[in-house]
Amino acid sequence: MNQRTFALKGNICCSETSSSLSISENSYVICEDGLCAGVFPFLPEKYRGIPCMDTKDCLIIPGLTDLHLHAPQYGYRATGMDLELLDWLNTITFPQEARYRDLEFAEKAYSIFAEDLKKTPNTRACIFATLHVPATELLMDLMDKTGMKTMVGKVNMDRNGTPQLQEESAAASACDTVKWIEDTLDKYENVKPILTPRFTPSCSDKLMELLSEIQKKYNLPLQSHLSENYGEIEWVKELCPNTSFYGEAYDQFGLFGGSCPTIMAHCVHSCEEEIQLMKKRGVYIAHCPQSNTNLASGIAPVRKYLDEGLHIGLGSDVAGGTNASIFRAMTDAIQVSKLRWRLVDSSLKPLTLEEAFYMATEGGGAFFGKVGNFKKGYEFDAVILDDCNLSSPLDFSVKDRLERLIYLSDDRNIKGKFTAGNKVL
Amino acid sequence: MNQRTFALKGNICCSETSSSLSISENSYVICEDGLCAGVFPFLPEKYRGIPCMDTKDCLIIPGLTDLHLHAPQYGYRATGMDLELLDWLNTITFPQEARYRDLEFAEKAYSIFAEDLKKTPNTRACIFATLHVPATELLMDLMDKTGMKTMVGKVNMDRNGTPQLQEESAAASACDTVKWIEDTLDKYENVKPILTPRFTPSCSDKLMELLSEIQKKYNLPLQSHLSENYGEIEWVKELCPNTSFYGEAYDQFGLFGGSCPTIMAHCVHSCEEEIQLMKKRGVYIAHCPQSNTNLASGIAPVRKYLDEGLHIGLGSDVAGGTNASIFRAMTDAIQVSKLRWRLVDSSLKPLTLEEAFYMATEGGGAFFGKVGNFKKGYEFDAVILDDCNLSSPLDFSVKDRLERLIYLSDDRNIKGKFTAGNKVL
Repeated sequence: MNQRTFALKGNICCSETSSSLSISENSYVICEDGLCAGVFPFLPEKYRGIPCMDTKDCLIIPGLTDLHLHAPQYGYRATGMDLELLDWLNTITFPQEARYRDLEFAEKAYSIFAEDLKKTPNTRACIFATLHVPATELLMDLMDKTGMKTMVGKVNMDRNGTPQLQEESAAASACDTVKWIEDTLDKYENVKPILTPRFTPSCSDKLMELLSEIQKKYNLPLQSHLSENYGEIEWVKELCPNTSFYGEAYDQFGLFGGSCPTIMAHCVHSCEEEIQLMKKRGVYIAHCPQSNTNLASGIAPVRKYLDEGLHIGLGSDVAGGTNASIFRAMTDAIQVSKLRWRLVDSSLKPLTLEEAFYMATEGGGAFFGKVGNFKKGYEFDAVILDDCNLSSPLDFSVKDRLERLIYLSDDRNIKGKFTAGNKVL
Repeated sequence: MNQRTFALKGNICCSETSSSLSISENSYVICEDGLCAGVFPFLPEKYRGIPCMDTKDCLIIPGLTDLHLHAPQYGYRATGMDLELLDWLNTITFPQEARYRDLEFAEKAYSIFAEDLKKTPNTRACIFATLHVPATELLMDLMDKTGMKTMVGKVNMDRNGTPQLQEESAAASACDTVKWIEDTLDKYENVKPILTPRFTPSCSDKLMELLSEIQKKYNLPLQSHLSENYGEIEWVKELCPNTSFYGEAYDQFGLFGGSCPTIMAHCVHSCEEEIQLMKKRGVYIAHCPQSNTNLASGIAPVRKYLDEGLHIGLGSDVAGGTNASIFRAMTDAIQVSKLRWRLVDSSLKPLTLEEAFYMATEGGGAFFGKVGNFKKGYEFDAVILDDCNLSSPLDFSVKDRLERLIYLSDDRNIKGKFTAGNKVL
C-alpha cells in the first residue's frame, strides 16, 4: 500500500443516479492506489490499518469538473460586464489575450490563476490558453504543480482576430500546434494537451483541415464553442454557406466528436438537427449559465439535453462567467432553468439540486474517464466541506447541509481536496 | 466637534445621477456630526485637525440599503430551493416562523441574524419579523445594538395561515400591533417599527381597516408584498372580487403609499394600472431578483420602473433569496435584466452597473430620508472596501475595481462600515 491508499470518514454524498443522491452518514470512503474502493459504514477488514482521516462531521463529495474556462481571462473577470459576446471579444478579450506574448506577464497572470483554482472545489478542468505556445506551456507547468487534473489547449485562430492576436496562416498555426503537442503530450503527470480551435469565425477551412489531420495523428480530444449567441450563429452561416447549422461547420472536418472526445461550450441556441448530431457523435456540452447570462446570450435548454441523454457538464467560462467555483455554476444552472421554465417554455421543468450535482460531478467528470463519483473503480477525486461557519439554530439533514454549502460556501469551507488520490489541498 | 465628526481618505465612489457614477480618487469624505459634509480633493481649512482615517488605496462607497428581507427565514436560507412561492410558504416558511413563539429559539436565531448582517455592506434594512410581539421586540433590541439603522415589522396575519401561525382575529392582531408600537416607537436609537401586513391573502378586510386606523394614528411607514407570483395574483383576485388589480387590495384601505412611506416587495407582474397607481402614491418598489429567480416567480421590468421615475431599491428577500449582501442583489439585478431583455422584451434594455449601484444606495436609501450618497447633508453611511485579495496582473481603474468588488467580494473585503456617522464595523 502506498500513500495514495487511505480512508476518509465523514458524511459522504455522491450521485446515485443523474437525478438522485446517495448519502452515507458517518461512513468511510476508501482510496486504494488512487482509485475509489467504495463507501462503507465500517472500515472493512482488508483496510484495517490504512491511514484514516476522520473529518468529524464534515461532508465529503466527489471533486467538481469545470468543462470550460479561459485562463488568460481570469485577470479581468468581473469587469466590462455590460457588453455582448462579439463586442466583448473585440474590445476586451482580444487585446488582453495579446499580452500573453510576453512571458513575464503570462507568468504573473497564470500563477494567480493556478493558485486561485486550487482553492475552489473543482478537481478537474478543461482550459483554453491563448494562441502563444510558450505561455501555454508555462500554464501547463503551473497547472501540473497544482495536482489538479486538467486539459489545456493552445488556441488556434488564423482569421477575424486583431493584428496583435491572430496567427499568420493556417500552416503556421498547425506548425505551432504540432510543436506544442510534441512538447507536452507526455511531459506531465496531471496535464494533457487538448486541441482548441477558438470557434468557427476564428479558424479558416484550411486550418480546420490541418487540425483534423493533427487530431487523427495524435488522437487528441478537442474543445470549442457552439451556438452561444445569435450574432455569432448568423456570422457562422455567412462564413460556411455550405452548412445548414453551426455544428456542421465543425463536423464537415471531422471535428465534432465521434472517436475523439469533444466538448462544445454553451449550446444555448442549438437547433434540433444540431442536438441530434451531438447525440450521435457523443459530444459533451459544457453548460455555462453565468456566462450566458452576463453576455446576454440566453438560457440553454438543459432539461432537453438531459432528457435526450446527451453528455452534459458545467463550465464557469471565466471570464464570461466571473466565478471559478463550480458550486456557483450549479446554483446558476438551477436558477436560470427556473427562469427559462417560467418565461420561455413551461414544458421543460427546472433543474433540481440533484441534477445540478450530477452535472457538476459525474456529468462533466466523465470527460476524464471514470471520474466524479465514489463508485468502486472511479478515480479518487474528493472535496471535504466544513459548514460550521454557516451558523443556524436549526438541525439540518445532510441533504440540507449540502444544499446550503452549494449556495453559501466559499474557499473557507473547503478543508481538503484530492485528485486521483493525491492531496491538492 | 464630537466623535461623529471625522474624515475618511480613499477612492470615493457614489452616484452622480441614477445612471452615472462620481469617482473621486485619493480624496476626503467628511462626516460632520453624523451628516456628510461633502467630498474634497484636499481637507478643507475648516476641518483641519479632525480625526482622519487614511484607508490608503481602499474604495469608500455609501452604505447599501436592503429594502426587503425576513429575519426569521435567515436560519434556513438555501434549503428547499426547489419549491414555488405558495408551496414554499406552507411547507417550509410557516412551520419555521411558528417557532418564534419560543423566545429562547428566537434569541438564538436572531442573534446569528444580527451578527451576520453586520458583516454585509448593508447599513440600512427594512425587515419582516413574525407575528409574535415578544420575539419581534427581541429582534429590535438586537438590531439596535448593531448600530445599523433598520425598520422592523411585527407581521400581521389573521387568515390563511396554519393553526400554529395565525392571529386569532383581526381585533387581536390590531391589539398586539398597538401594544408593540407603544413599546417600541420611541425606544431605540437605531430601530423604528414599520407596519407589516404580510400580504393580502394573510389579512382580512377587517384587519386591513384596523391597520389603516393604526397607521393614521401613529403615522407609520408600511411594508408588504405585491404581484410576486401568478398563483398569488389569482388568489388575490378571488379574495378581493371588488378590485381590478392587486394594488387596489391595499389601496382600498388607504394602505398603498400616499402620506405614509410604503414599500411593496417584488412587483414582478404589475399591470399598467398598478404601475401608474404606485407612481401616483409614491410607493417604493423593493426589487428582489434572486428571490424572484429561486421561487421561479419571473423577472420584474425594472427598466420600465426606472423610466417611469418610480422609487425603486433592492431587496435580498432572505430566505426567498439566499444571500444577505446587497452586492449580490446588484449583480443579480443586472443579470436577470439581461435575460429579460433577451428572452421577453428587447425594448427594455439591461440595467447597467451604474443603475444597479444607484438602486442599492440612494434608490433604496431614500426610504430612510437623505441616505445613500455623499452629497452634503446626507446621513453619513459609508463602507470601506479593500480589494487587495482580488489578485490580478492588471492595473484597474477605480470603476473597474468597484465592479470587481461588487461581483467578487465577500465579508473579508469590508474594512469598515459607518451608519449615520456611527462606526458599525
